[in-house]
Amino acid sequence: MAILQPLIDMAEICYRQGIRHVVISPGSRSAALTLAFARHGGFQMHVCIDERPAGFIALGIAQQIDAPVVLICTSGSAAYNFAPAVSEAFFQQIPLLVLTADRPKEWQHQYDGQTIYQTAIFGQHVKRSFEVSPDYAHPDVQWAINRITNEAINLASIAPNGPVHINVPIREPFYPVAQEELAASDEVRIIKRLENAITWPQQVLEELLDEWESAPRILIAGGQGRPDAALNAVLNRINEEWQIPVLGDCISNLSGAEMIRHHDLFLGKSETEKLRPDLLITFGMSFVSKEFKQFIRKNPPKYHWHIGQDAFLADPFQSVTRDIPGKAAVFFESLFEKLDYQSFVENADLGHDTSFYALWQENDRNAGRKKHETLRNLPLLSDLTLLDRVFKCSEKRYQLHVANSMSVRYANVLATETEWAGVFANRGTSGIDGCVSTAIGAAKVNGQPTLLIVGDVAFLYDRNGLLIDRLPQNLKIVVLNNAGGNIFRMIDGPGNLPELETYFETRHSFSARRTCEDSGIAYFHVSNLDTAEQTVNEFLAFDGIALFEGFTDPVENTRAWRALKRALH
Amino acid sequence: MAILQPLIDMAEICYRQGIRHVVISPGSRSAALTLAFARHGGFQMHVCIDERPAGFIALGIAQQIDAPVVLICTSGSAAYNFAPAVSEAFFQQIPLLVLTADRPKEWQHQYDGQTIYQTAIFGQHVKRSFEVSPDYAHPDVQWAINRITNEAINLASIAPNGPVHINVPIREPFYPVAQEELAASDEVRIIKRLENAITWPQQVLEELLDEWESAPRILIAGGQGRPDAALNAVLNRINEEWQIPVLGDCISNLSGAEMIRHHDLFLGKSETEKLRPDLLITFGMSFVSKEFKQFIRKNPPKYHWHIGQDAFLADPFQSVTRDIPGKAAVFFESLFEKLDYQSFVENADLGHDTSFYALWQENDRNAGRKKHETLRNLPLLSDLTLLDRVFKCSEKRYQLHVANSMSVRYANVLATETEWAGVFANRGTSGIDGCVSTAIGAAKVNGQPTLLIVGDVAFLYDRNGLLIDRLPQNLKIVVLNNAGGNIFRMIDGPGNLPELETYFETRHSFSARRTCEDSGIAYFHVSNLDTAEQTVNEFLAFDGIALFEGFTDPVENTRAWRALKRALH
Repeated sequence: MAILQPLIDMAEICYRQGIRHVVISPGSRSAALTLAFARHGGFQMHVCIDERPAGFIALGIAQQIDAPVVLICTSGSAAYNFAPAVSEAFFQQIPLLVLTADRPKEWQHQYDGQTIYQTAIFGQHVKRSFEVSPDYAHPDVQWAINRITNEAINLASIAPNGPVHINVPIREPFYPVAQEELAASDEVRIIKRLENAITWPQQVLEELLDEWESAPRILIAGGQGRPDAALNAVLNRINEEWQIPVLGDCISNLSGAEMIRHHDLFLGKSETEKLRPDLLITFGMSFVSKEFKQFIRKNPPKYHWHIGQDAFLADPFQSVTRDIPGKAAVFFESLFEKLDYQSFVENADLGHDTSFYALWQENDRNAGRKKHETLRNLPLLSDLTLLDRVFKCSEKRYQLHVANSMSVRYANVLATETEWAGVFANRGTSGIDGCVSTAIGAAKVNGQPTLLIVGDVAFLYDRNGLLIDRLPQNLKIVVLNNAGGNIFRMIDGPGNLPELETYFETRHSFSARRTCEDSGIAYFHVSNLDTAEQTVNEFLAFDGIALFEGFTDPVENTRAWRALKRALH
Repeated sequence: MAILQPLIDMAEICYRQGIRHVVISPGSRSAALTLAFARHGGFQMHVCIDERPAGFIALGIAQQIDAPVVLICTSGSAAYNFAPAVSEAFFQQIPLLVLTADRPKEWQHQYDGQTIYQTAIFGQHVKRSFEVSPDYAHPDVQWAINRITNEAINLASIAPNGPVHINVPIREPFYPVAQEELAASDEVRIIKRLENAITWPQQVLEELLDEWESAPRILIAGGQGRPDAALNAVLNRINEEWQIPVLGDCISNLSGAEMIRHHDLFLGKSETEKLRPDLLITFGMSFVSKEFKQFIRKNPPKYHWHIGQDAFLADPFQSVTRDIPGKAAVFFESLFEKLDYQSFVENADLGHDTSFYALWQENDRNAGRKKHETLRNLPLLSDLTLLDRVFKCSEKRYQLHVANSMSVRYANVLATETEWAGVFANRGTSGIDGCVSTAIGAAKVNGQPTLLIVGDVAFLYDRNGLLIDRLPQNLKIVVLNNAGGNIFRMIDGPGNLPELETYFETRHSFSARRTCEDSGIAYFHVSNLDTAEQTVNEFLAFDGIALFEGFTDPVENTRAWRALKRALH
């Protein structure tokens, strides 16, 4: 391995740059990388034989610690099995350092094993793809590997965070000889990147305030974002002191008594034009609420400021008029506090229409009341009534993870009044893949009781995440088993097709029970509402990793969901 | 859907171009494609909720029928889950028509669901990646979709066969209204591509014969290839009439009494230089035998002809001197029959060293004898002794599928004397992924009893292939459960590392039993050699899909494998 010293140093650079977690899938070509990190002693190593869940486990860890996680695989199609997680990390802005071992280029397309075209294999779904040369003895190569490793780590952590790829071709021999020590070089160069901050000139802020003053009706709305105490503090002040409605999906992680939370339920109504803002201020990533998206597209504001470090012009509502680079918390603080705040307070005419705030609040309260009323009157077990019980029984402060498809939609209606230690979903690509593994990764490092809500199809899809070497005992999984992809029955289009059950729902009779037994996961289940609450309590009280499976009827689920939606109209 | 008529016609073009199989994973954006194929009536539809195994199921079908199979997924990371199968299909030269539904480009990178960069998403691992425009009403778009569909199907089937990708962006609305009929246009243009043949001018063949005559010692060796009756016929004539040794791995699918089959066992010996040919003639794709590769690299022939339609210069032995485009069967027939064959027969001095043939035969017979002797004397259950029993009990003519890693290595030693209805392995990328799904796809269409040999890790990795809508009842699966990636213990390098069990073998205690119960697969198992034969017989006699799990000890497996290797030296 002496010749592979630059790879040993790579682990040292990662450590000294603050990386602490490494997820690996076993392989031979990647042995030097595996050993460099395993023998370093400073890393928590996570092992999963299947690269697809391994990628999402790394994503789940990085999502929590907001710092790069190293992900290692061997050469060949292994790298492609990382791709679903890499693309999710890219769009969800999660920092990963993906190290793919490779065979030297001379063996490409030569009928030799585990050799594919790995250069830039993740396409546009990484912030950058590096590749090192396999002649590790050359001083320029040693320099390049040092620089690239430093650069890749820094780059992964510059907003917007994201995955960075280093392809690492390695020639034989790549195993150490017996008793060979793998120690970092005496002097490994570390290149730290200075932290910087984005600020806005006074005249720019004043220009914005002119727009603000000319807009009687202002709405603030947050897309997906990590819990951010500073942001919540300033938003709550805006909300309460200035009577400006602030709206957030469950995955926006906005907390505060006055936040608008039921927009998904009431914005579908016909008389909502009155809720149209003159100025919309958005921040964060994607919005779960399709109703909100459609509402704004149909009722575009005169001004729309979007604040973010997206590195692209994010305009999903088709109404942005100002692209404001920076952090939302800092921006709001600057605008409302650092500028001459007092002058506003003294000037009574802020131009605000306080009835606008009242209208949003009224709609939200009404929707909440009707939601609870409807839920109380649903007599049968359904995904909705079951989840309602689960959320009501969650006495501990859980971190909530929700799968895509119906789970996140349910959560956006039901999980809005609970205090969570963060709500997370893979809304970067909104794929069905990886939700189990992401929650496993998160639970391994978040130090919180963790609750995952997932449908049967998404659970089956990603069950290989359970093959990880050590399952986190703080994870509780709720599987809404409606025997197929129930969402297809609920959305317009496929619901009435004769092909619904065969090609869309794909009805099946799988259960999670045996998968739990295989992995030593405690298993709970219900098939009717009578025993649901008690079983949910037993499940949540269980000390260790557990899975609760609710067998619900897809037709009843559809009826319940529609009843809830209809109740608001 | 009327606006999506070109997509309905796409299904009709596929049908009239001879495509009969469609593998889909459910999705909403892909609904128009799914319905176009499902309602056509001429296709066998296969459904799997997980795109990764769906891709390999399509590959398994296409591998058998040697014609393109359509593979459909929705937008987003779904396409990336096809990538492992697509890269395997590319290097194994299997025709696929991959249709990925996409959202229109204007929604890329806009925090909107299931939208990633799908253009050319499979990189260099498709023969070509097309993309259509989403304005289906435009006559040029209609023309382009017709042409591209025809072109893609033709291209997938031109040697070397391989996957072709069409990315299909679709705007809403994309579901048909109630009672809407989806019928192909009255006149759908079909563009057939004329079959063509490669021949070689007389003077070229004569030049080759000069080289042939000047090489006293000639060896013919076949890499991976489908069973080919014409090729086997001509090779057996060469072998028997001209005393030229012909060598093939199990996946070469060469059949004949005099074929060299134990090269993997005897070429590791030291005194093998005498087996060096003056002229080596190779054809086919990859070789399993590492011993053979290393033997030729160490003992390069003076001349090396490689015959194939590879579309690249395949030189894994580093000795090719002539790259001969064309089909091996036709080439051998042309060279040895169409040329003045008689003149060779009359001319006593062919320049051949018949002792060379005898030497190869002797080595092969010796190796075979010692192999059987060693196997008889192995007293304990091991992967080797278990597989030996399985192959000996296989009374029916099975089609054999072997996973990568140890399974294919075992088969290359043990499966060489059985008459199989074809032996298949995913040696394009030689990945751990997809072997279960590939065998499922193959068994669905091959009309043969089918036997899959797979290790526990590869089985777990690809167990989601069992989620397909209908499992083929003609499939028998043998899982060599050695509680981890046993190969790492056997190969030089990791075997003696303290990290062996944690990071390479990744020891576990999973069994396939519950996965079988979940999927309604009959389950058999053994833990010792005494009952192995009887249980194997019961397993093979079972009427329907069944899985046989042999719990073997990784240390004993290593001992047995080394004993076999050593017996020859």
